[in-house]
Amino acid sequence: MGLDSANTGSANTSSAGTTSGSISIGVIGGGQLARMMVPPAIQLGMRISVLAETEGMSAERAADAVGDYRDPETVYAFADTVDVVTFDHEHVPGEILYELERRGKAVHPRPEALQFAQDKILMREKLAELGVPIPSWAAVSDEVELQSFIDEHGGRAVVKTARGGYDGKGVRVISDAGEVRDWFAALAEDGRGGHLLVEELVDFVRELSQLVARRPSGEIRTWPLVETIQKDGVCAEVIAPAPVQHAETIDEAARIGTAVAEGVHVTGVLAVEMFETRDGRVLVNELAMRPHNSGHFSIEGSVTSQFEQHLRAVADLPLGDTSMTAPSAVMINVLGGPEEGPMPVRYQTALAAHPRAKFHSYDKQPRPGRKVGHVTVTGDDPAVVLAEARAAAAEFD
Amino acid sequence: MGLDSANTGSANTSSAGTTSGSISIGVIGGGQLARMMVPPAIQLGMRISVLAETEGMSAERAADAVGDYRDPETVYAFADTVDVVTFDHEHVPGEILYELERRGKAVHPRPEALQFAQDKILMREKLAELGVPIPSWAAVSDEVELQSFIDEHGGRAVVKTARGGYDGKGVRVISDAGEVRDWFAALAEDGRGGHLLVEELVDFVRELSQLVARRPSGEIRTWPLVETIQKDGVCAEVIAPAPVQHAETIDEAARIGTAVAEGVHVTGVLAVEMFETRDGRVLVNELAMRPHNSGHFSIEGSVTSQFEQHLRAVADLPLGDTSMTAPSAVMINVLGGPEEGPMPVRYQTALAAHPRAKFHSYDKQPRPGRKVGHVTVTGDDPAVVLAEARAAAAEFD
Repeated sequence: MGLDSANTGSANTSSAGTTSGSISIGVIGGGQLARMMVPPAIQLGMRISVLAETEGMSAERAADAVGDYRDPETVYAFADTVDVVTFDHEHVPGEILYELERRGKAVHPRPEALQFAQDKILMREKLAELGVPIPSWAAVSDEVELQSFIDEHGGRAVVKTARGGYDGKGVRVISDAGEVRDWFAALAEDGRGGHLLVEELVDFVRELSQLVARRPSGEIRTWPLVETIQKDGVCAEVIAPAPVQHAETIDEAARIGTAVAEGVHVTGVLAVEMFETRDGRVLVNELAMRPHNSGHFSIEGSVTSQFEQHLRAVADLPLGDTSMTAPSAVMINVLGGPEEGPMPVRYQTALAAHPRAKFHSYDKQPRPGRKVGHVTVTGDDPAVVLAEARAAAAEFD
Repeated sequence: MGLDSANTGSANTSSAGTTSGSISIGVIGGGQLARMMVPPAIQLGMRISVLAETEGMSAERAADAVGDYRDPETVYAFADTVDVVTFDHEHVPGEILYELERRGKAVHPRPEALQFAQDKILMREKLAELGVPIPSWAAVSDEVELQSFIDEHGGRAVVKTARGGYDGKGVRVISDAGEVRDWFAALAEDGRGGHLLVEELVDFVRELSQLVARRPSGEIRTWPLVETIQKDGVCAEVIAPAPVQHAETIDEAARIGTAVAEGVHVTGVLAVEMFETRDGRVLVNELAMRPHNSGHFSIEGSVTSQFEQHLRAVADLPLGDTSMTAPSAVMINVLGGPEEGPMPVRYQTALAAHPRAKFHSYDKQPRPGRKVGHVTVTGDDPAVVLAEARAAAAEFD
C-alpha cells in the first residue's frame, strides 16, 4: 500500500488501526498541540492516539493512554499500538526514542534532530556550524564566566537554562551573575557538569517566526513569515503575514528556516523564532520541533494548517500548499485567570459579537497566565482583521 | 453559566463533561456526518459522544457507545451522559425522542420538527400549508390511485416510499403503477395503512440546495445557494456558490429555506434540496434536518462550516458568519469500489499531484457506490477550481 514508506520498520506496524489501510499516529503529550492534531487526523482518515501525562489533559478526548513519558516501558507499550510516534512537546528523553528506533518504530522528529530542540546549548553549536545568524552566546559553568560575558556585552545579558524552559520559564535578563546563583546550584546538584546559556541582549525591533515542514524523504514547505508579539515572555499575538519592513527579510527568514530544517534533518513542523534588528538583519532566537503557537493562524489562514502538515510530514506523505487563504490572518491567545472560567462559559457574548471570529477552546481549567484557547480572524484588510481579532479575544479578559 | 439556555431540562445536564464548563453533545448515528462534527466540537471545546450502530463506523473514533438507536433503553442511557442529543440521520423513532424530552433532555432538532424529515408525505402536507412551491404530488394507497395520478401527469411520475429512503433508495420513476407493486405489498404487510408518495416528473434544468441553520432561540443563518450535480441519484458534485442563471433565484431560495426552517421550527442545520425549472422557478424536492452532503464545501469554503454551525445551533449558541472564504468552492464525493481500497492508500499520488486540494477520508471500507470521502478545492476562478477538484477526486477512480 502507498503508506509503506512511512514506516522505517515493519515488524509491528500493522498492530493498530490499519485494517482499513489508514495509518495510525501516536502523539506523546496531551496538551493543546496534540488536541489540535486530532481534527486533521480525522479529516485525512488517520487514526490518532495520545499518551497524556494526566487525566483531564487538553487532548484527553483522543487519549488512549495516560502515563509518564519519562518511563521507558510506558512509552514502548504506547508506541506498539501505532505506526508513527510524534510529540506534543520536546521533553521525552532521547534514550527512550533511540531505543524505539532500534526496535524498528518510526519516530518523527527523530531523536538526533530533537536533541537540538531539547538542549539550547547544543542548538547554538549546531546553528553556528550551519552558519545561521544567531546572537553572541556562551556556555558558562560558573558566575565568573557569566559575569565576564555580561561585562563584555554592555552590562546586561539573557541567561537561559539549557533544558526544560518554555514560555519565558528558564529565562532571566540579568546584569549580575549572582541573579542566577540558584540555577548554578541546581546544575551542581545535578552532578552532570551542565552549563547555563548566556546571550547578548539583542536590540530588536520585533520578533518573527518562520514555520517550516519537512518530511523524511526531504520535501520541504515554508509558510509565510509571521510577526509574533510577546507579552511577559509568552506569545500573545501573531500577525500573518508579517508586515514587510525590509523586503530582504522575507527571503532571508525562509532561507534560514530551510537551512535549519535541512541542517538538523527535522521531520515534521519546525518553528524558527527570530529577532529582527533595526537594520533588517534576522537572528535566530529559539527552535521548536513541533507545531508551534506562532502557527495556529494556519488552521484557518493557510491552505494546509501546521497540524495537518505535521501529520503528513511524520507519515512521510506529500506536503500541502502553505499559501494564505486570505490576505491577512491574526491569531490572539486567550490566557485564563482564575475568576474567568473556561472559554465556553463566555461564548454567548463572544460568538454573538464576533460571528467572523474562530474561537478555539483547549477545554482547560483556567489558571492565571495559562493558555486556555485562541482566536483567529482572517480577512482582506490587515488593520480590520487585527482590530476584530483583538476585540474578539478581549471578550475573555 | 452562559450555556444554561442550551438545556431545556436541568435534572441530569451536569452528568457529562461539564466540570470545566464545556457542553457535551451526543450524536445518534456513527456515519461520516457524526465524524465531521468532531473537529469543530474539539475546536469549540465541546465534548462530543457518538452512539454508533456498529463497531467500525466512520465516527468510531469518537464513539462512546455502540447500540441500536431503535431500542429505547439504549438511547435513554446514552442521552443520560450528554447535555444535548442530536443526529447523524433522521431514523430515530419519534416516540423515543418525545420520551427524552419528557425526561427533560434537550433534543435538536426536536421530534415535532424531525417528523417532517422522517415522513415525505407529512413533509409535503406541511410545505403546502406553508405555501412553499413544490411539485404536484399525491399520497396514494393503491395502484388505481397511482395510475390515475400518472395518467393525469403526462404518463410518467416519481414514486417514493414515505419513510426510510435516501441517496436514491426508495425512489422510482415509473409509467405503470404495477412497477411499485412490491412497495404496496410491503405497506399492506406493515398493517398501518400507509401510503406511497407520487410526484410529477419535474422538467428541471439543475438541482440546487439551500442550507440554513436555526437555533432554538430563533436566530437563522443561510449559506450561499449551491448547485448540486447528481449521478445515479447520489450527490456527486457541489458548486458553491451556484452559478447565477436567474438573479431572483438566489433570493427566492433563501426565502424558501428560511420559511421552511421557521415553519417547521427546525433546530440545527436544514438542507432544502430544490429543482430549478427552465423558467427560473424553484420547487422543493427534499428536506434533511442535519448537516448534508451539499454543505461539505463549507468546511473550507465558509467562515463557519455546517458542522460547526450545527453544534452551535443545537447548543443554542450564537450562529457564525456563513459567507464564503473564497469566491469559489467545489466539493466532489469519492465513491468507493471494491478494487480501490480506502482513500489513504492512494494518498502518495493524490496529495503530491494536488497540494491545494483538501482530501477528506471517512475511514470507511470501500464498497461500490459507497461514499468513502470527498475532496474540496477553493479559489478565485470557478472554472479552475472545478477542474482542480475533478482532477483531485479522479485520483480515486
